[in-house]
Amino acid sequence: MSREVRTILSPSLFQQVEDLDQKIVVVIDVLRATSTITTILSNGASAVIPVMDEDEARTYLDKDYLVGGERGGMTIEGFDFGNSPFHYPPDKVKGKEVVLTTTNGTKCLEMAKNAKHVLIGSFLNLSAICDFIDDKEEDVVLFAAGWRDRVNMEDSLLAGAICHELNGDYSFDDASLLSQSAYFLAEDDLFRHLQQSNHFQRLSKHGVVKDIEYCCEVDLLDIVPQLVNGKLIVA
Amino acid sequence: MSREVRTILSPSLFQQVEDLDQKIVVVIDVLRATSTITTILSNGASAVIPVMDEDEARTYLDKDYLVGGERGGMTIEGFDFGNSPFHYPPDKVKGKEVVLTTTNGTKCLEMAKNAKHVLIGSFLNLSAICDFIDDKEEDVVLFAAGWRDRVNMEDSLLAGAICHELNGDYSFDDASLLSQSAYFLAEDDLFRHLQQSNHFQRLSKHGVVKDIEYCCEVDLLDIVPQLVNGKLIVA
Repeated sequence: MSREVRTILSPSLFQQVEDLDQKIVVVIDVLRATSTITTILSNGASAVIPVMDEDEARTYLDKDYLVGGERGGMTIEGFDFGNSPFHYPPDKVKGKEVVLTTTNGTKCLEMAKNAKHVLIGSFLNLSAICDFIDDKEEDVVLFAAGWRDRVNMEDSLLAGAICHELNGDYSFDDASLLSQSAYFLAEDDLFRHLQQSNHFQRLSKHGVVKDIEYCCEVDLLDIVPQLVNGKLIVA
Repeated sequence: MSREVRTILSPSLFQQVEDLDQKIVVVIDVLRATSTITTILSNGASAVIPVMDEDEARTYLDKDYLVGGERGGMTIEGFDFGNSPFHYPPDKVKGKEVVLTTTNGTKCLEMAKNAKHVLIGSFLNLSAICDFIDDKEEDVVLFAAGWRDRVNMEDSLLAGAICHELNGDYSFDDASLLSQSAYFLAEDDLFRHLQQSNHFQRLSKHGVVKDIEYCCEVDLLDIVPQLVNGKLIVA
């Protein structure tokens, strides 16, 4: 019996997923939440604590935490960091717990939290994610955060990349096949391909082209962030 | 200023569309509602009346209408016809009004009814649809019916085909770009490509492979069905 792989292209479609507690969910918000979380943990933070809203994140500001957050692509005023992976170098985050709130990514983590395994996926840790999944036996949900509930290109491409790289007896739903098609056409030059996407055009206005280039690097990092008791840690 | 083309990959995402009364909406349910509607009108029916539920359709049975309907891919008991395009040859439908209810397609028509232009799209009338759109000035919504609110391959492929065939100054959202990618990989042999899709596997159990082959025929029919005062007529 092959394992089912479903791709959810927008949070509005996540409610369709049944038996969540028996599934692996990979949360995907390539630009930039899940790429940044993977980077923070790879740079030695002991955990990333995803929180839903700005006010909750603010309550951590005077305690022994680093606090990062973004709304609409911009760093929240008064926070230590924004949503750029370059805001979190090893000398700042090593051994620390980092509290993070983002527009789309943290909402998806909240929606997915009752799954058997909740993972954080990015191009940076593509192979690590696929190896983790291949080693398990559960069905898989690739959960693209999108942008304000709209389907977006970068998250769909990563879902397609994961489908392509999985190695075992899997059956794919149509949204997975659609994402794979897009990935086939884009894989030789992800960055160039993303330049035509809507989100690229939004983000590039904020001057974060360097971030986008970084988020398109495949297999730079060999860790799998996993949600355990409300904290993201290295699996 | 280029015209915006958005692809809505599931009815659950349609609520995102704003200013509907200023837009062209193309309802897409390739297997089989919109292919069948296009065929019925091309075969000479004076109108197709889409109705939401079986009971409403039943009220037309003893009047001077032909009544067709499908639930879960099967003809509704007691109805004149099902959802197959081959159920509606010219000698049966010429000059008649046909009442039709289907699982997904008629629901989408109801959701889209307040748009400036509501059209019915299929591979059968691909060029006719694109010519109609090219001649207008409104933004465009390609509304894929999907299957029980899930994204499906055949409707996404047609959305991609329309994006590819439009000829003018258009800007495409990421869902449109994603659909175009899938279409690029599939266009040389739509039927073969659809054989891997989920819906094909469902429908082929009902013995309707011949229907699917027919629904993959590009530009067989040169009409645009349009919703006017609750009835679908040739534009």
